[in-house]
Amino acid sequence: MSGSELDRALDLIVEIPDFPEPGVLFRDLTPLFGDAKAFARVIEALGEEVGDGVDRLAAVEARGFVLAAALGYARGLGVALVRKPGKLPDVAGRVDYALEYGTATLELPTGSVREGERVAIVDDVLATGGTVAATAELLRSAGAVVTGVSVVLELESLNGRSLLGAVPVHALRAV
Amino acid sequence: MSGSELDRALDLIVEIPDFPEPGVLFRDLTPLFGDAKAFARVIEALGEEVGDGVDRLAAVEARGFVLAAALGYARGLGVALVRKPGKLPDVAGRVDYALEYGTATLELPTGSVREGERVAIVDDVLATGGTVAATAELLRSAGAVVTGVSVVLELESLNGRSLLGAVPVHALRAV
Repeated sequence: MSGSELDRALDLIVEIPDFPEPGVLFRDLTPLFGDAKAFARVIEALGEEVGDGVDRLAAVEARGFVLAAALGYARGLGVALVRKPGKLPDVAGRVDYALEYGTATLELPTGSVREGERVAIVDDVLATGGTVAATAELLRSAGAVVTGVSVVLELESLNGRSLLGAVPVHALRAV
Repeated sequence: MSGSELDRALDLIVEIPDFPEPGVLFRDLTPLFGDAKAFARVIEALGEEVGDGVDRLAAVEARGFVLAAALGYARGLGVALVRKPGKLPDVAGRVDYALEYGTATLELPTGSVREGERVAIVDDVLATGGTVAATAELLRSAGAVVTGVSVVLELESLNGRSLLGAVPVHALRAV
């Protein structure tokens, strides 16, 4: 895979000003997901970033599901789906956290991870880091070891890494 | 792939009585998504059901994303993400529809499908068919041809097929 192929794939991401709130620059990955070749490049690149020594992927609802499911299939890894509240009858844990705009809650289904499992978190965009940090907290509460965070896009000015302590963050593109 | 491998994968689906509403038997695919081997079997089987002559997959938020993303990657097909309302700044269409419990709205992002494209819908469970019929309506409004519906599980007693007219429905298991 050439770097330029990945660049062209990432160039499909669209910037939408003032969505969902005034002052927020939304990154829309819809066109990337719709382009089979670009999507495959991004999944391959994420797979290189996730590396070896991982037992499972964790995905954050809902765009994280798209990336983690394809990557899990490509790499032969099961996926733990971290969900918005009320979707699951039986949860191992729940966490409330601050978003770039507003607050949110995430839940981890019972039985999603095993004690001592090495889990990599996959998501589309690392912004303030709140969602990913909450996911890491849920996974650790359930006994997992968080090996890293792999995202397509990192918004550097929001410094989301600062919430993640020593957990390595891999981004295909930082803006 | 042996039938029994697929059967074992599908046997991971858990039945939860009275969720999310009294009287509803919820099917939880979480354990299937978490088992790499079972997930791969299901994706391969869905791919056989989808068949050839398809230009794109359409996925319904959120569990449909998991299946369609992996299948799109496996088959080299782009994925149109049909979303819950308010997630997208710019939509090609919107539809309100009745659920097994309550009502819901779905939106199709602008530019998700091209005129005349042959699109297969992928979802986890076919229940009353309301979600899938609404998705088909959205896709057709945007100019696509809906070639079929592929689901993991079909709840036959709810007769969801009746809402889908002549669109072929493929289910890995009917219960």
